[in-house]
Amino acid sequence: MEEERANEEQENQWQQKAWKFLTTVREKSPLIQCITNFVSMDLMANTLLAAGASPAMIHSLQEIPDFTPHTHSLCINIGTLSPDWLPSMKSAAALATQLGKPWVLDPVAVSASDFRLKACLELVHLKPTVIRGNASEILALSNASKGPSKGVDSSHGSLDAVEAAKSLAQASNAIVAVSGAVDIITDGQRIVGVHNGVAMLQRITATGCAVTALIAAFVAVDPLHAFEATASALSIFGVASEIGMGMAKGPASLRMHLIDSLHGLDQAAVLCCVKITNM
Amino acid sequence: MEEERANEEQENQWQQKAWKFLTTVREKSPLIQCITNFVSMDLMANTLLAAGASPAMIHSLQEIPDFTPHTHSLCINIGTLSPDWLPSMKSAAALATQLGKPWVLDPVAVSASDFRLKACLELVHLKPTVIRGNASEILALSNASKGPSKGVDSSHGSLDAVEAAKSLAQASNAIVAVSGAVDIITDGQRIVGVHNGVAMLQRITATGCAVTALIAAFVAVDPLHAFEATASALSIFGVASEIGMGMAKGPASLRMHLIDSLHGLDQAAVLCCVKITNM
Amino acid sequence: MEEERANEEQENQWQQKAWKFLTTVREKSPLIQCITNFVSMDLMANTLLAAGASPAMIHSLQEIPDFTPHTHSLCINIGTLSPDWLPSMKSAAALATQLGKPWVLDPVAVSASDFRLKACLELVHLKPTVIRGNASEILALSNASKGPSKGVDSSHGSLDAVEAAKSLAQASNAIVAVSGAVDIITDGQRIVGVHNGVAMLQRITATGCAVTALIAAFVAVDPLHAFEATASALSIFGVASEIGMGMAKGPASLRMHLIDSLHGLDQAAVLCCVKITNM
Repeated sequence: MEEERANEEQENQWQQKAWKFLTTVREKSPLIQCITNFVSMDLMANTLLAAGASPAMIHSLQEIPDFTPHTHSLCINIGTLSPDWLPSMKSAAALATQLGKPWVLDPVAVSASDFRLKACLELVHLKPTVIRGNASEILALSNASKGPSKGVDSSHGSLDAVEAAKSLAQASNAIVAVSGAVDIITDGQRIVGVHNGVAMLQRITATGCAVTALIAAFVAVDPLHAFEATASALSIFGVASEIGMGMAKGPASLRMHLIDSLHGLDQAAVLCCVKITNM
Repeated sequence: MEEERANEEQENQWQQKAWKFLTTVREKSPLIQCITNFVSMDLMANTLLAAGASPAMIHSLQEIPDFTPHTHSLCINIGTLSPDWLPSMKSAAALATQLGKPWVLDPVAVSASDFRLKACLELVHLKPTVIRGNASEILALSNASKGPSKGVDSSHGSLDAVEAAKSLAQASNAIVAVSGAVDIITDGQRIVGVHNGVAMLQRITATGCAVTALIAAFVAVDPLHAFEATASALSIFGVASEIGMGMAKGPASLRMHLIDSLHGLDQAAVLCCVKITNM
Repeated sequence: MEEERANEEQENQWQQKAWKFLTTVREKSPLIQCITNFVSMDLMANTLLAAGASPAMIHSLQEIPDFTPHTHSLCINIGTLSPDWLPSMKSAAALATQLGKPWVLDPVAVSASDFRLKACLELVHLKPTVIRGNASEILALSNASKGPSKGVDSSHGSLDAVEAAKSLAQASNAIVAVSGAVDIITDGQRIVGVHNGVAMLQRITATGCAVTALIAAFVAVDPLHAFEATASALSIFGVASEIGMGMAKGPASLRMHLIDSLHGLDQAAVLCCVKITNM
């Protein structure tokens, strides 16, 4: 009974936090540099704009010394990685870390090739503030972070993902988020679960990339609370998808209603629907 | 009278086949590697996801030896071709052919430049399972395949396209599909026509690219019946556009309803609306 | 009283002109080559298609001598500029100017880096027919065009933007358009304002890029009246957004309804809603 009340209070505090993050992004309109894949650029930019942030898809190596210092956070996504883009990613990440700016890594399909895994490990060494992926990606990255002899574990149970996330968070000093039916967020000690979102998001390309960009916007306005920012962004995106799902007839209309809902999200919806729990 | 009944029976068989292909894609969720143009990546990925397949836009030369062997088919599209992407396309195509995996070529705007035509001919020599284009593209490619002295015919009558398609199919050993008011599919001997689709598709960018990706998904689940897979994919995409058109107010809403309809397509709609005939 | 009548007559003339441009684009379907950024390719292509034009996103240096001569105008946008794309932009711009074909420059985020500003100035020297940007972009480019010693003015009042636009138009011999609550168009002498559009366009990525592409299509069908074409394109796009806004629930549905409305725009809507005034 008492535990129930304590849980309820905690949930309420998370709802207040999530609403605070969203309103702060809307007020401050942080500038988010995205060095990302070709597939997701449109949806990422529109997600950031709908949330009130300012996206900038600027990726040339030449421009990073001039531009990155003016941004509030950086989002790096390796979805369509190629050798000519990697130096920009590393340069921007290193500069962000050096300047104390938060940055977020999305290790898309990290186990698709040795090239991709090696690139990702190099990026992890540049100290991302947050790493967000699905269970397979976090498992692969976590195992690889333990050293070359370990190999990639193929079992993807959700318990494995939690342990892998904690281990990766401890090894990298980053907040690690695992997207799934329940999203897991950990700083290596604390673990929370986000119980928002709808299954049909998996039938829309780049929704994972989009939520990573939203994390970058939330972290930008309060870099000292990256753990809270990450959980809040995942939950807010999930709530927008739940509201969107009420109007959707399939994945393409869900994509539209999701962005509309994120743009229009009000306090009542956030305080009612955000569901973040200790685990 | 008897001929009519025979035709009807044939049409029914095609409807059953098309439904079989769609349900198999939904069950098996084949992994489709797309090395494609920047304009179409979003719509191609969403088309594949709506049909139940798994898209992967991975194009780096370094990743092909690791990744391509895990895919079920490959889709190559030269829409925004550049010299630095061509080696990846050729490497992936050669590896797919070597491993016996089906792959599909979309020769977008093949006659826009000598560079593009030469690149396309090199890809045709790597033995695509299917080539899909519009009448001008297939005519240009077919004429060029006959040797350098021939030049590109500028007459684009639909009868010319049929002969060009047959000739290209015989020269390349590929199934050749010509999109148009009636889509033509041939293996060099057999010819069928697909009588589905709506004219407004031409006012939406990348719908041709998207249907080529769908062909790749259908061929992936039954590589030995590439002719049937190609006709079925064109017809299923056309039926989804017909249903979508019933709700659309213009090209942008058609695009949305088309993807929603493809995702929700049921047996009744397929058995009623797929219209494939011998020619 | 008399002035009022004169203004009204002028507005009517602009409405007639705008309708003439739109119908001519629909009739002639001009071929527009776009060398543009990755974020906007999809929306630009769909905007051109909805207006009745034919987009071609062809950017390889090798293809320009073969392809650019067949186009009716060229649209160059530096949104995701990189050193390997710049030579193509310069080559296509130079060839267009040499062949007397109109071309339009969109100096996206020109002040984000020295690399970008220098590239933009090089493009301006290749004699664009039209330059369209927001107030900050036009101010930065106008100041930089006056010589390296001048620096970039940081005051972005709308009066500053008008003077900067006039000055840039005189220095470059281009029509200059400044997007804003009221769009400003000048040839260095004449100035008109376009009072169309909705604020929510700023919450959709690539709408600025899309209207630049529409300018390229309008200029393509009447290159001798680039001033009128530019004002008309901005106004038509704005009217389509106003009609779309009546059906929209947020930025994503506005994007869809905007394109649908542009496709379906009829004479009554254009003659009623286009609002272009002398300034």
